Amino acid sequence: MTTPWELRFANRTQRMKSSFIRELLKVTNQPDVISFGGGFPAAELFPIEESKKAAEKVLDLYGRKALQYTTTEGYDPLREWIAEDARKDGLNITKDNILITTGSQQALDFVGRIFINQGDRVLTEATTYLGALQAWNPYGPTYVTAETDENGLITDNLEDLIRQNIKFMYVLPNFHNPLGVSMTLERRKRLIELANQYSVPLIEDDPYGKLIFEGEPLPSIAALDAQYQQKNDTEFGRNVIRTSTFSKILAPGLRIGWAIAPQEIIKRMVQAKQGADLQCSTFDQYLAYELASADWLPEHISTIRRVYKERRDAMLQAFKDFMPEGTTWTVPNGGLFLWLRLPEGCDSLELFPKAVEEKVAYVPGTPFYPNGGPNNTMRLNFSATNPEKIREGVRRLGVMIKKSLEK
Amino acid sequence: MTTPWELRFANRTQRMKSSFIRELLKVTNQPDVISFGGGFPAAELFPIEESKKAAEKVLDLYGRKALQYTTTEGYDPLREWIAEDARKDGLNITKDNILITTGSQQALDFVGRIFINQGDRVLTEATTYLGALQAWNPYGPTYVTAETDENGLITDNLEDLIRQNIKFMYVLPNFHNPLGVSMTLERRKRLIELANQYSVPLIEDDPYGKLIFEGEPLPSIAALDAQYQQKNDTEFGRNVIRTSTFSKILAPGLRIGWAIAPQEIIKRMVQAKQGADLQCSTFDQYLAYELASADWLPEHISTIRRVYKERRDAMLQAFKDFMPEGTTWTVPNGGLFLWLRLPEGCDSLELFPKAVEEKVAYVPGTPFYPNGGPNNTMRLNFSATNPEKIREGVRRLGVMIKKSLEK
Repeated sequence: MTTPWELRFANRTQRMKSSFIRELLKVTNQPDVISFGGGFPAAELFPIEESKKAAEKVLDLYGRKALQYTTTEGYDPLREWIAEDARKDGLNITKDNILITTGSQQALDFVGRIFINQGDRVLTEATTYLGALQAWNPYGPTYVTAETDENGLITDNLEDLIRQNIKFMYVLPNFHNPLGVSMTLERRKRLIELANQYSVPLIEDDPYGKLIFEGEPLPSIAALDAQYQQKNDTEFGRNVIRTSTFSKILAPGLRIGWAIAPQEIIKRMVQAKQGADLQCSTFDQYLAYELASADWLPEHISTIRRVYKERRDAMLQAFKDFMPEGTTWTVPNGGLFLWLRLPEGCDSLELFPKAVEEKVAYVPGTPFYPNGGPNNTMRLNFSATNPEKIREGVRRLGVMIKKSLEK
Repeated sequence: MTTPWELRFANRTQRMKSSFIRELLKVTNQPDVISFGGGFPAAELFPIEESKKAAEKVLDLYGRKALQYTTTEGYDPLREWIAEDARKDGLNITKDNILITTGSQQALDFVGRIFINQGDRVLTEATTYLGALQAWNPYGPTYVTAETDENGLITDNLEDLIRQNIKFMYVLPNFHNPLGVSMTLERRKRLIELANQYSVPLIEDDPYGKLIFEGEPLPSIAALDAQYQQKNDTEFGRNVIRTSTFSKILAPGLRIGWAIAPQEIIKRMVQAKQGADLQCSTFDQYLAYELASADWLPEHISTIRRVYKERRDAMLQAFKDFMPEGTTWTVPNGGLFLWLRLPEGCDSLELFPKAVEEKVAYVPGTPFYPNGGPNNTMRLNFSATNPEKIREGVRRLGVMIKKSLEK
């Protein structure tokens, strides 16, 4: 029977959808399925012993404070730590430029809440993070999409797009989810030049930046914006809201992310957060600070990089060995994901049940295109599975795809 | 200098305001101020040792799971515990009727997000929880308000109000924030009768229900709705969304609250939560489950009740001893707050800086009235201050008010 509630949904509720990925992954929770579907970090690398020590220390030294309400902005030492880390990256900011959020997902939600009116035009990459779309769709934006290649967002015809009355742009410059690609320095600079020229602001979503496999990290979009403006003698770093998280370097279960933004925007985000949930877990913020400021963190991040690189390599090798001719893939230099394109005629959504029959799972590419796209793509996660299982999973996938091509 | 962001706010952002209380309390953070302003539980009662043991156990036994992503709905054993607790209260529900939220504040936010279109009419008590208004105002509702007295919401002319095309009603039946009053059984029944008769659904916000000082708790609005419908042979409990939290019986710093609702509404809330922040802290959910299911909890709640009752009594006695004639107050039988009405002509907002000069703080009543109200009221918290300090704080307040009346 229908309840009175169901007759009373707001208009925006019609635009809410369940996360395709979260729904799909429920199917693949059996232990014998090799899943490349989720975006899970490797749980065997979680700092469990360190977390035990940190929890004990926090409760011994600051128990009454760590279990009490705190400020909406977040725990100050944690904000200081994040500000210091950003300063090393060339951002001349203080803790007052930082809001602690429930994962970077909540920072994206606040961006939607604060900026998007129905019908506003938001510029994204043609393939983009599903969670951003899910956060923003209830507010009813229209997406203007820019093509990508193996070097990330293509900036050649970006100017034409930016002139289409864009509210803001959204980019994932490092180890893109779902593509796995990164923007070159040249493209980053061109993007910032255009953003400044047309005063169109940018969200830089960077959850994976520290998980680089080889070489030196490129400057962040926020840092390049600051540089550009110093060069041009205008105010510092005013175009970029940068979001990131501890989920991929500490543990996602703590749900500690953040936004870096001009102070005036942080103030608005704080108002949004007061209405949304008052504040993040005080205890988890104390824990995250203890873990982040500990000596072992740099080595821990090195370990994650090494392990994920091995897994990426195992996946790339398995593709060469098991995938049918005509399959192509990206080669990420960091992060958790890569993007596979099957031979023409394959439909990754249609193949999904067959993959599950073969006890292997992935995410079909379709939901990652805000304005639609080819149906022969898929996202594969390599961080959560060991090399042997990766090889076996890709083998199963290759067999299944070859079989379907033969039909 | 203005950033491009500031030129781009959404319309709803103009309706967001900083929490009056949170802003005000920043003034009163000096250690020598006796503050009745916040809504803080007594930190000296927090289960710090138990939390240490629980954290160690959770990390030892379930470390990899407790630090990993989990489902949006929440940690199943915790949902089961909450369902079982609600069943004892007469609600025939399962875990599938429960969503874990970041405090009950987030459940209120989701209600606004899912149900409120601009201009919708929401019925509240004439004096109501500020956090609900803050959660909902961005969505642009109009408030229709029902008067209250020492027995809570007055139901005599409620029928006239309910007929005004109400989207939903919002009530705090137990130890109301800010009023401290509770609805009688008779009024609860009348409220449910009208809700069913006119098919106008209800939010029952009950963060303090377990903190009762004397006598037996009254049935919840949700339980009465279920009873009414069983009697009338319709579906179970379809009119009520009930929100509550562990903040007042365990620790607010964990930010674990919940909504109890018909499954179809939980599904929509899950979609809202996926966009908002994916899920609550996995670790805190494991912790809350360990703490909630432990043997010592009933005794712990008894201790909180006893201590808060002593503090309430100290405050009531101090009012009698120090407040000027013509001052009236509510006598709560539970919870954290009471409501004081100063003699006519006193303006509690105007007096606030003088109180801070005298090193005592409260919350002026004005922001709690969605449609405006008298300016001689204030909310006082008695849970966070010991009896000696309560007496001294009320003395300072009395002196200050008497002085201002003499002028």
